[in-house]
Amino acid sequence: MGTTLADVAAHAGVSVQTVSNALNNPGLLKRSTLDRVLAAVDDLDYSPNLQARRLRQQTVATIGLRIDPLTENVAASLLDRFLHELTARADAQGRHVLLFTAVDDEEEVRKIRELASQRVADRFLLTSTHLGDARVTSLLDEGLPFAAFGRPWGAAREHNWVDVDGAAGTRAATDALLDAGHRRIGFLGWPAGSGSGDDRRRGWAEAMAERLGVGGDALDALTARCQDRVADALVAAGPLLERGVTALVCASDSLATGGIGAASQLGIRLPVIGFDNTSLAAGLGFPSVDQSLGEVATAALAAIDAQPGAVTTIVRPHLVRRDDARWGIAPAADRGPSPS
Amino acid sequence: MGTTLADVAAHAGVSVQTVSNALNNPGLLKRSTLDRVLAAVDDLDYSPNLQARRLRQQTVATIGLRIDPLTENVAASLLDRFLHELTARADAQGRHVLLFTAVDDEEEVRKIRELASQRVADRFLLTSTHLGDARVTSLLDEGLPFAAFGRPWGAAREHNWVDVDGAAGTRAATDALLDAGHRRIGFLGWPAGSGSGDDRRRGWAEAMAERLGVGGDALDALTARCQDRVADALVAAGPLLERGVTALVCASDSLATGGIGAASQLGIRLPVIGFDNTSLAAGLGFPSVDQSLGEVATAALAAIDAQPGAVTTIVRPHLVRRDDARWGIAPAADRGPSPS
Repeated sequence: MGTTLADVAAHAGVSVQTVSNALNNPGLLKRSTLDRVLAAVDDLDYSPNLQARRLRQQTVATIGLRIDPLTENVAASLLDRFLHELTARADAQGRHVLLFTAVDDEEEVRKIRELASQRVADRFLLTSTHLGDARVTSLLDEGLPFAAFGRPWGAAREHNWVDVDGAAGTRAATDALLDAGHRRIGFLGWPAGSGSGDDRRRGWAEAMAERLGVGGDALDALTARCQDRVADALVAAGPLLERGVTALVCASDSLATGGIGAASQLGIRLPVIGFDNTSLAAGLGFPSVDQSLGEVATAALAAIDAQPGAVTTIVRPHLVRRDDARWGIAPAADRGPSPS
Repeated sequence: MGTTLADVAAHAGVSVQTVSNALNNPGLLKRSTLDRVLAAVDDLDYSPNLQARRLRQQTVATIGLRIDPLTENVAASLLDRFLHELTARADAQGRHVLLFTAVDDEEEVRKIRELASQRVADRFLLTSTHLGDARVTSLLDEGLPFAAFGRPWGAAREHNWVDVDGAAGTRAATDALLDAGHRRIGFLGWPAGSGSGDDRRRGWAEAMAERLGVGGDALDALTARCQDRVADALVAAGPLLERGVTALVCASDSLATGGIGAASQLGIRLPVIGFDNTSLAAGLGFPSVDQSLGEVATAALAAIDAQPGAVTTIVRPHLVRRDDARWGIAPAADRGPSPS
């Protein structure tokens, strides 16, 4: 049984690479070539080393990603949009994206282990990172290659991640409104204490402090908070609007939609800027901060191949301006401040 | 080299199935069992027949699905929602969903061929079927196993597909409005000539004809048509509302959103029912016909394994009622006709 790949190649009259392709990527070969190689394998009774083949086959170049059951949460569609960008960019590298589901983080880790050992996927991407995320530690301990979309909120062992600079996004939105002459710019956000929620408020707060000298209690008076639901935002935005804000920066498109609805009920037209640039923003035609998901996908593909901790990328989001005067929410820069 | 799988099993003291798993799905086994089987394989110099393994490995049970680059088209998110349902149901069967992209139908067929021959995926699901769809013929000719989400619009060779009964959906929406006492129910749809667009109008037209005896010109007078964009629907719905319709059935949530906007501009509140139950309907809180994508996914998984032409399934959609009085678009059945 001393037969080698080179013996088979010589017998078949092809290169060693061609024999390797025949065993691992038969689809790359012409039918006649494949048949010739397989005949040589039979003639020489060649037995490819199982372990070696397993190792070679680990280059299946498939990226496993968990997706959760549908919710009516509008923000959930952000991951769907990311999926399009990731698939397109992975495809360009000859890689594929493989979807699976899990009921919780523990099951996700278990399935990643399974997919890796079955060689169905060889890289993994975590999303929806959160405080005290145990997935990172488990995957690092088991040496499973992964990257996270979402920074570690709180202490975590070194690993690769890519995230979007939420503060830079709301800063850009607030700057656009300030440039257009607005001064009483409200912020509609989530309850304090969530990593990304606090990050998004910070960009607005810093712009207001640096450019207008507004801080502390004055900022609190310009802030309203609620859960990420349109109906809740409809209620939460009311008092803010009654306090005479002339524009709103929001932590999400759901909140922005509620803000627009609340303004409409009060007969007020004012610019409202959302975050995530979901189909709500596109459909209703209001401006929104876009997470630059194409760049996130490119960075994630780089991070996924690097040594743990070698790649941490912060992507800069950008403001998508929309001027749909029919909804009364054109970007302030183009229309000037509305009467409050 | 007369060693068989059974010899290896006897030598390792495990079942034949366990040896098979060790070779094809090592992740299913405990580490110690796997090591024992692999030692037996080495001891007996067992050479699994390459062709046989290839055949067995064809049960990788991965379903390839093309997704396209992102557009701002709200309806595109329907496929994203389907993806969640498909992944969950496939997962429950031990299958996975593998995503790839293609610039056109020809490239899609080419990539399917490639993925199949590399055994990266062994079943395929087509979406966005259309008149004169050449993918069906190509895949049938090459014997590549697939099913389509979307019926063949026009002549096509026998193949497996699952689709949603669009007419039944708008029929349910129209019936609900008729039950609530509405008579002048308008239809806001797409330009005539698209398979699914005409199908969706038919359900409304049949309900109006059967229950009110309205037909022909009267139906045309109650119909407005435009492309599937909120801004276009905002314009198209105006004349219909001015003609005094008291409720609107729409071919999509984008059209419904435009209809609601148009009504709001005219100071009218009336029930508007969308189609597809996208995040727009959930976010704005208006009722919408849901395509029952869970059932579509289950039917697609059955169709994908059947002989070509053996399975064609029509799934019945259902009306999702939402009563968000703040938007003035509660389902008619709960609120009665609005003053026009």
